[in-house]
Amino acid sequence: MLSSAGVSSATPTEEMNGAGNLMDFLDEPFPDVGTYEDFHTIDWLREKSRDTDRHRKVRPRVCVQFTVNTFSSHHACLSSVCQITSKSKESVWELIKSLLDAWSGWVVMLLIGLLSGTLAGVIDLAVDWMTDLKEGVCLSAFWYSHEQCCWTSNETTFDDRDKCPQWQKWAELMTGHAEGAGAYVLNYFLYVLWALLFSFLAVSLVRVFAPYACGSGIPEIKTILSGFIIRGYLGKWTLLIKTVTLVLAVSSGLSLGKEGPLVHVACCCGNLFCSLFSKYSKNEGKRREVLSAAAAAGVSVAFGAPIGGVLFSLEEVSYYFPLKTLWRSFFAALVAAFTLRSINPFGNSRLVLFYVEYHTPWYMAELVPFILLGVFGGLWGTLFIRANIAWCRRRKTTQLGKYPVLEVIAVTGITAVLAFPNPYTRRSTSELISELFNDCGALESSQLCDYINNPNMSRPVDDIPDRPAGPGVYNALWQLALALVFKIVITIFTFGMKIPSGLFIPSMAVGAIAGRIVGIAVEQMAYHHHDWIIFKNWCRPGADCVTPGLYAMVGAAACLGGVTRMTVSLVVIMFELTGGLEYIVPLMAAAVTSKWVADAFGKEGIYESHIQLNGYPYLDVRDEFTHRTLATDVMRPRRNDPPLAVLTQDSTTVEDVETLIKDTDYNGFPVVVSRESERLIGFVQRRDLTLAIKNARQKQDGVVSSSVVYFTEDAPQLPASNPQPLKLRRILNLSPFTVTDHTPMETVVDIFRKLGLRQCLVTRSASPGHHHQEGCPATHGSNDEPGPRVHHVQLAEKSFPPPTL
Amino acid sequence: MLSSAGVSSATPTEEMNGAGNLMDFLDEPFPDVGTYEDFHTIDWLREKSRDTDRHRKVRPRVCVQFTVNTFSSHHACLSSVCQITSKSKESVWELIKSLLDAWSGWVVMLLIGLLSGTLAGVIDLAVDWMTDLKEGVCLSAFWYSHEQCCWTSNETTFDDRDKCPQWQKWAELMTGHAEGAGAYVLNYFLYVLWALLFSFLAVSLVRVFAPYACGSGIPEIKTILSGFIIRGYLGKWTLLIKTVTLVLAVSSGLSLGKEGPLVHVACCCGNLFCSLFSKYSKNEGKRREVLSAAAAAGVSVAFGAPIGGVLFSLEEVSYYFPLKTLWRSFFAALVAAFTLRSINPFGNSRLVLFYVEYHTPWYMAELVPFILLGVFGGLWGTLFIRANIAWCRRRKTTQLGKYPVLEVIAVTGITAVLAFPNPYTRRSTSELISELFNDCGALESSQLCDYINNPNMSRPVDDIPDRPAGPGVYNALWQLALALVFKIVITIFTFGMKIPSGLFIPSMAVGAIAGRIVGIAVEQMAYHHHDWIIFKNWCRPGADCVTPGLYAMVGAAACLGGVTRMTVSLVVIMFELTGGLEYIVPLMAAAVTSKWVADAFGKEGIYESHIQLNGYPYLDVRDEFTHRTLATDVMRPRRNDPPLAVLTQDSTTVEDVETLIKDTDYNGFPVVVSRESERLIGFVQRRDLTLAIKNARQKQDGVVSSSVVYFTEDAPQLPASNPQPLKLRRILNLSPFTVTDHTPMETVVDIFRKLGLRQCLVTRSASPGHHHQEGCPATHGSNDEPGPRVHHVQLAEKSFPPPTL
Repeated sequence: MLSSAGVSSATPTEEMNGAGNLMDFLDEPFPDVGTYEDFHTIDWLREKSRDTDRHRKVRPRVCVQFTVNTFSSHHACLSSVCQITSKSKESVWELIKSLLDAWSGWVVMLLIGLLSGTLAGVIDLAVDWMTDLKEGVCLSAFWYSHEQCCWTSNETTFDDRDKCPQWQKWAELMTGHAEGAGAYVLNYFLYVLWALLFSFLAVSLVRVFAPYACGSGIPEIKTILSGFIIRGYLGKWTLLIKTVTLVLAVSSGLSLGKEGPLVHVACCCGNLFCSLFSKYSKNEGKRREVLSAAAAAGVSVAFGAPIGGVLFSLEEVSYYFPLKTLWRSFFAALVAAFTLRSINPFGNSRLVLFYVEYHTPWYMAELVPFILLGVFGGLWGTLFIRANIAWCRRRKTTQLGKYPVLEVIAVTGITAVLAFPNPYTRRSTSELISELFNDCGALESSQLCDYINNPNMSRPVDDIPDRPAGPGVYNALWQLALALVFKIVITIFTFGMKIPSGLFIPSMAVGAIAGRIVGIAVEQMAYHHHDWIIFKNWCRPGADCVTPGLYAMVGAAACLGGVTRMTVSLVVIMFELTGGLEYIVPLMAAAVTSKWVADAFGKEGIYESHIQLNGYPYLDVRDEFTHRTLATDVMRPRRNDPPLAVLTQDSTTVEDVETLIKDTDYNGFPVVVSRESERLIGFVQRRDLTLAIKNARQKQDGVVSSSVVYFTEDAPQLPASNPQPLKLRRILNLSPFTVTDHTPMETVVDIFRKLGLRQCLVTRSASPGHHHQEGCPATHGSNDEPGPRVHHVQLAEKSFPPPTL
Repeated sequence: MLSSAGVSSATPTEEMNGAGNLMDFLDEPFPDVGTYEDFHTIDWLREKSRDTDRHRKVRPRVCVQFTVNTFSSHHACLSSVCQITSKSKESVWELIKSLLDAWSGWVVMLLIGLLSGTLAGVIDLAVDWMTDLKEGVCLSAFWYSHEQCCWTSNETTFDDRDKCPQWQKWAELMTGHAEGAGAYVLNYFLYVLWALLFSFLAVSLVRVFAPYACGSGIPEIKTILSGFIIRGYLGKWTLLIKTVTLVLAVSSGLSLGKEGPLVHVACCCGNLFCSLFSKYSKNEGKRREVLSAAAAAGVSVAFGAPIGGVLFSLEEVSYYFPLKTLWRSFFAALVAAFTLRSINPFGNSRLVLFYVEYHTPWYMAELVPFILLGVFGGLWGTLFIRANIAWCRRRKTTQLGKYPVLEVIAVTGITAVLAFPNPYTRRSTSELISELFNDCGALESSQLCDYINNPNMSRPVDDIPDRPAGPGVYNALWQLALALVFKIVITIFTFGMKIPSGLFIPSMAVGAIAGRIVGIAVEQMAYHHHDWIIFKNWCRPGADCVTPGLYAMVGAAACLGGVTRMTVSLVVIMFELTGGLEYIVPLMAAAVTSKWVADAFGKEGIYESHIQLNGYPYLDVRDEFTHRTLATDVMRPRRNDPPLAVLTQDSTTVEDVETLIKDTDYNGFPVVVSRESERLIGFVQRRDLTLAIKNARQKQDGVVSSSVVYFTEDAPQLPASNPQPLKLRRILNLSPFTVTDHTPMETVVDIFRKLGLRQCLVTRSASPGHHHQEGCPATHGSNDEPGPRVHHVQLAEKSFPPPTL
């Protein structure tokens, strides 16, 4: 029996005696046994069974009933299992504890939602203010943003909401002149200066306090969720610094968004609250469930799209996403969105970032430009990923990577200098997207809506017919085209710098600009050539048939899809974002096209590419492997390798073990009966072994280098002269995962993926003493003694060196 | 080597010799080997590896590269696998074939979308017409529904769109009198008569042609998707009959919806198109991927909610839902929705069933009634499930089940007689829901909108302030309350009858009625007591603060959630359905509350309950098992059972095998070296064994009862006098799934669930000859000879008797 303490709180019936045999890591014979080292991968199965053990302790229960369900053929292994019913009447305290335990998951979700919603609100407000600070200041209260300043002013007219005496540009404030070349130059200069200041602060804070706070964080979160451990990546410092530097980075006007980093921030919140509950802090598997939900909350507040957030977490980020996590993510996303709405940073009581209302349906023929936008999105995705990865690789491998501060300053300088003259790049990217999405109403004063009105049309109505474009529109088209080129180029160099930088908003901006240009082109074509066959059916003169804003929306979806390869979550986010529910079909068409086009050039999205670039271990759920091989072909050791590193159950000394640990870097070792028979007993983790020996040497008298390590149930009684034996059965995993050497590799990969294994042992039938694999047994005739003795070969497993960050 | 033909189309390099060892079911040495019997469960792993084999054949490739990725610690088993690159330049034909193969998935999706969209459109139109046929007929064209009839009429005024001379009620047509008691009675009588006729036709068609066409089909589809085989359930006849009878059943006015059955119809389409491609028709696993996507298309057209459909398939129906299926489902749902929109059965160019536009935001304080509606929904769900299951059980076990036609007739009669007098139950349920969701505009003429207008208010605007209710509203409240009770009771008896019957619409109706009543109550309370503290902050006099339609929507979501336990997909469906994007938070709050309340009374939704009632084998992904046991405690044979049924590799005769097959009903048998050593060689499926022996006896000379069956690679050369040996290694699975007897049961269940195993062998260390398990080895001391010899115990597995349908 492994540990009798493990079941002490239960009252086992007679049939239940077997349960005492479970490995119980919660006993923690030595501290840290069952934990993982940094930059190592967790074993999902072990985490899961540890959680079940914990459950048993928290909720003492009795097995009362054995049912045999003879109908169930597939799931027969379930029949006659012990149905456990609650009998926690021992004490009220036990009951409360068990309730608390059951509800702690929801409590964590609530906390995550509240904190991430609050942080997102604060970030939104701060970004608003600081972005406007680059241009001017509010005289009535310097902490007001431009909009708030004029909103509170009484002198604002409805037509010109943006102009009010309280808001003064820097030049006006400093020299008294609002117009003129001098004022322009001064404003320009101060704009660039503020931008440089913000970005310098951001990159310095990241360098000094939390190097993990840079980037979007999504590639790393994907890796962490797949079971990898990067300590500190989701720590308190990262949370704090990322929040502050995110505001600075976005405000500096760089071509980056706050959406990806907000996911990172939300995951940091999740990790923070995990530490409040031992259920989550002590179990890496459970912790990842919380983190998945936190990622959903992050997207939820980033876009005001709770359902899109849940789907993003499911489709893009998470590795293990059971339905329970789906519900909890949903709850966390809801709370987060609700908190954000209460803070109301956009001042419009809406959750969504870019609210639009279109008044006309779309027509079949428009699918052609929508699909073309999809193609553009796919091409942009491919171009961006290739160029960005090439640049990032250059950063990693050349001198460039040594001067991150300089790089950020340089890029900020170039961005600010180039951005200021063009009104579409000067403003914040989300404002730009918002304007591009907008349909031109009658009251719209923007340059993009400078159409030549029909003099016969008197009253302003929603349903404005298509009109010829005025000079303002043509002017805007030129500026937009320049902005498009600028955004495309600068985003490639921006993403991946050592500051928090998201990719969603810049990608969407590229798509929205392209889409709006296409939209206006189609609109004007339809207006001027409404006798063409394609327009004849749906576009009579005087009708409002083309909505350029819709094209911008479709373009944004296409470009975002091309870069990230999201489909379902993308469309949901887009229509949550815009309220454009009727436009699912165009959005879907563009998203699917963009995915197909981009996939034709390379299967990996930007996040997978960055994972690969950084060398994180990540087994993509989406990849389809077509192996021709069997387990026997890939298992280690290979033909000319040294024999497999194993421990024997009762003949290895402490010194042997220590030598083995020192000489190899495997994460664990199979334990066999003896080197001759190599029959498998179990598997022991390297870390557990190290800790156990260290602990024994310190605390257990008589354990010396020549002590024999016993993995058997009982160590033999040795004469007193011999050194004390070291019994380590409690750290031995008695149910290591094994497959036969005839198992096809797809199956092995599938098992690894679905069960989240850390290693898998291969057993084979071989003659005794046949230590290492010699190719395929069928061709080498080593299979002549039929009947599998359990021979076992560990698959290649190395510890993972920390990546350079 | 198992089969050399298996790799003949490939050009293996030297390292690849091992690949020939794969079991290759596609060789099909005997017809039907590798298929499954009816009412049996498939082996997902086997299906998967069969598909990979097929891939290899279709796309001949060469292994060119071995990479060892030493960084990857977790996924080490991937390192150094054979990276396969394309080299299909053998011929253009090969290339085309390979392209076709790669695109066949998308083609199937396209076809499913087109057909299911078309069918849904036809069903919608037919239901519209036949529902109205119960009341009257269109004189200008009898195939017009009421709405179409008056739409095409020129004499219709805008105010009274429903009244036009072309549309005549039966009494008017037959007697010339439109009004009066006589006409009322005649209309009443004919209404009931039509209803009885429709339902009689429906139930007769189902009984005679396709018994599987009854019910909603979702429980069975869930079971099928989890890997069970029910032949004919998704067949052509079922498709045809279900489509026709669905129209009849819905038109008869019974309290049922078309949504669930549409999922079944779409899955039938999916199955139909699977048969066009051998890739899908020959692989049960791949077929299920298509069916998952078809289910999404079904919901997509049922509600006009493509994304909701995908999520429904993911959350509620599917068992194995890889990301690839997510994308394909998305595409199928898109095409289906688009097809439906092109048919345009609702005549409004919108995809959605109940389009609403609300003009006021909701307020914090309203969360209280929303959450109360959630509680109501949870209680309704619990009540409905318990009552319905009890009634269905009674139907199965008593005389009641013998007279399905009579039952349907009786329920239809009662429904029609009770429904006609109440205007809210007389109309079709979806019309009712639509009216309840609607906000009262200025032009609304419905009884529910009979508010007392403020005489000062002159122009009709969108933003009508709250007004006191008029007599019409109070009248409507009474009728709605009666309708609520009626719907609650009658739905319990209707769901589960032998006609196609969906549950979504009746559930939503119950919730919408309750919600509207609550909404009106809150509205009037706010109007009359706007000085109360709770109303003071958000509801000044003259403001439009409460939208009763929103309450109806929230109530509908809560009730649907209580019955089905959907959350995310439910909310998405609801807001796709209604366009009510701003109301995610109320919907989510209600859905989560309703789930919590309902879960408190029982974890199972209506579909799981019906699965259990019918005794289908279904391992719910959502259940959390907390086993105290190890594999050793549940494995068979138990202590006093006869020893394990095994085959030996070279000493069993054909007769022995036949006796074993006859005497036991296991789905397969482990093959061991000898009865003494019981070392595991592999596993052979019962069906394959039966077929192989049958085939050999027919075709292979010299195979008689005393022939020895060899599972070894080479049968020994026997003297000619001995009967010919039967070599069966090719049907032997050399990589059966094994776990050690120390594996915790959670892990075993997890493996079963995630890998979709059909059986799992338990190996244990025991002294030789120790055939059956004797409790826990640790307590019985049978583990005294350490070191596992592979002992193996098959878990209980029985074949599954066909359920009574």
